[in-house]
Amino acid sequence: MRARLSLNQWTTRHWTMPEAIDGCARAGIPAIGIWREPLQAFGLSATLRRVRDAGLRVSSLCRGGFFTTSDPLARREALADNRRAIDEAAQLGAPCLALVVGGLPAGDRDLPGARRRVVDALAELEPHAAAAGICLALEPLHPMYCADRAVISTLAQALDIAESFPVEQVGVIVDTFHVWWDPDVFHQIARAAGRIASFQVSDWLVPVPSDLLLARGLMGDGIIDFPPLCRAVSATGYRGDIEIEIFNAALWSRPGDEIVASVVNRFEQHIVKATEDEDPRS
Amino acid sequence: MRARLSLNQWTTRHWTMPEAIDGCARAGIPAIGIWREPLQAFGLSATLRRVRDAGLRVSSLCRGGFFTTSDPLARREALADNRRAIDEAAQLGAPCLALVVGGLPAGDRDLPGARRRVVDALAELEPHAAAAGICLALEPLHPMYCADRAVISTLAQALDIAESFPVEQVGVIVDTFHVWWDPDVFHQIARAAGRIASFQVSDWLVPVPSDLLLARGLMGDGIIDFPPLCRAVSATGYRGDIEIEIFNAALWSRPGDEIVASVVNRFEQHIVKATEDEDPRS
Repeated sequence: MRARLSLNQWTTRHWTMPEAIDGCARAGIPAIGIWREPLQAFGLSATLRRVRDAGLRVSSLCRGGFFTTSDPLARREALADNRRAIDEAAQLGAPCLALVVGGLPAGDRDLPGARRRVVDALAELEPHAAAAGICLALEPLHPMYCADRAVISTLAQALDIAESFPVEQVGVIVDTFHVWWDPDVFHQIARAAGRIASFQVSDWLVPVPSDLLLARGLMGDGIIDFPPLCRAVSATGYRGDIEIEIFNAALWSRPGDEIVASVVNRFEQHIVKATEDEDPRS
Repeated sequence: MRARLSLNQWTTRHWTMPEAIDGCARAGIPAIGIWREPLQAFGLSATLRRVRDAGLRVSSLCRGGFFTTSDPLARREALADNRRAIDEAAQLGAPCLALVVGGLPAGDRDLPGARRRVVDALAELEPHAAAAGICLALEPLHPMYCADRAVISTLAQALDIAESFPVEQVGVIVDTFHVWWDPDVFHQIARAAGRIASFQVSDWLVPVPSDLLLARGLMGDGIIDFPPLCRAVSATGYRGDIEIEIFNAALWSRPGDEIVASVVNRFEQHIVKATEDEDPRS
């Protein structure tokens, strides 16, 4: 029932790396999406050892990107940091590095320019990703984050960019929270066949919480109709992990084991059934 | 310089109808976008008389729509109310009725169903609009409002719907606040040639204010690059009014004449030049 479930560790924001790894193991969650901040705090080799001891997979490393700056020095630093992130992902055995590409630089209104710099950065990083065997996973973020987080706003736009690179090196992330509203979403998910690097799941709450960065809900607490989206992703042939990534201060304030129990429960209730319909292995 | 400027009266939220009309006249603003709530409070014939005495045009009536309900009775009431709004727009001499189509009904997750009901409602209202000589102006709202305000989220989607109706009866509103982020916006504006019923302008603030319904800024206070959008709209041949519609509590708290002076100033600074480039009449 939970063979494809991955806990993105930001869902249990206040757990340390070992707490998150052990928590997944206790709950029978087979995979974890790892963030770089707790990775740095606990150390890469310690993390890797603990992940292996717990018998987990690493479903993704979060996150690279933030390369829309037009300042040459800052840009070089961003690319160097992304290369380090690619190496970390490879050492962890993660299939992909999730990219939040960055918003408009401060004082800059040139959106097409910022978008061009994303393409340029991917072109520079792709050989390094190829050598490391890592897929750069472009994440279109909801358009409300376009100015300050990610100038890639739709799956169509992410695919337009990704398609000029080899499918092994540049993919896309389908995240229900970011794409549910898109009138073209089913067509674009079908088009993404073979390019889906990660499938992430959380719900859209109504009303939208005042802190937009912490606005996500557990599946079932909001208005997203998950079964059609899950079926569409399954129909592309995607059989990878399904990551639960929920940024929500109220959720974070609960004990980690309670959060994980809710994640498992909502995953089985809202996601598994729709996914199994299309997945002959289940 | 301000021949095409229209003050959407919600920009001076705390002014009554006669205050807004007189305020436009004092500031040399030739057109006003009227809202139904103050229209009802002041009365239609009193409003019409005052608008004529002030020598103003009515650029739009705001707003109809809100017809995504699946309850038959509520739906009949919504359609009846929209017919009344069409009649009011005609009596005011407004070219169009702005439609905010409505979000998902409470407890409903069927987004495609809600979107179908929008198309159905337009089909029911179109003969009435034709008889009244009013264009129903579909307003795509920013995707962050999809769940609770408007299930029409992009210009492409609005045009897909509008194009099955006569161009005189169903048009679209291009509002910079709602469409600036769209990677496809220039293509879709070009496609909208002949269908642009209204062009509305306000800015996207960073960070996004916590009340999403009051998140708009005066042109220049945010990150929207207005000249390319203005040129694109002008290039379609649109020569109608340019409405300034800003929902912002801090702005509203200022005296009305101050708000209007800022609107005129920012319009001349950020909008006029870009529009004149394409407009041989200017």
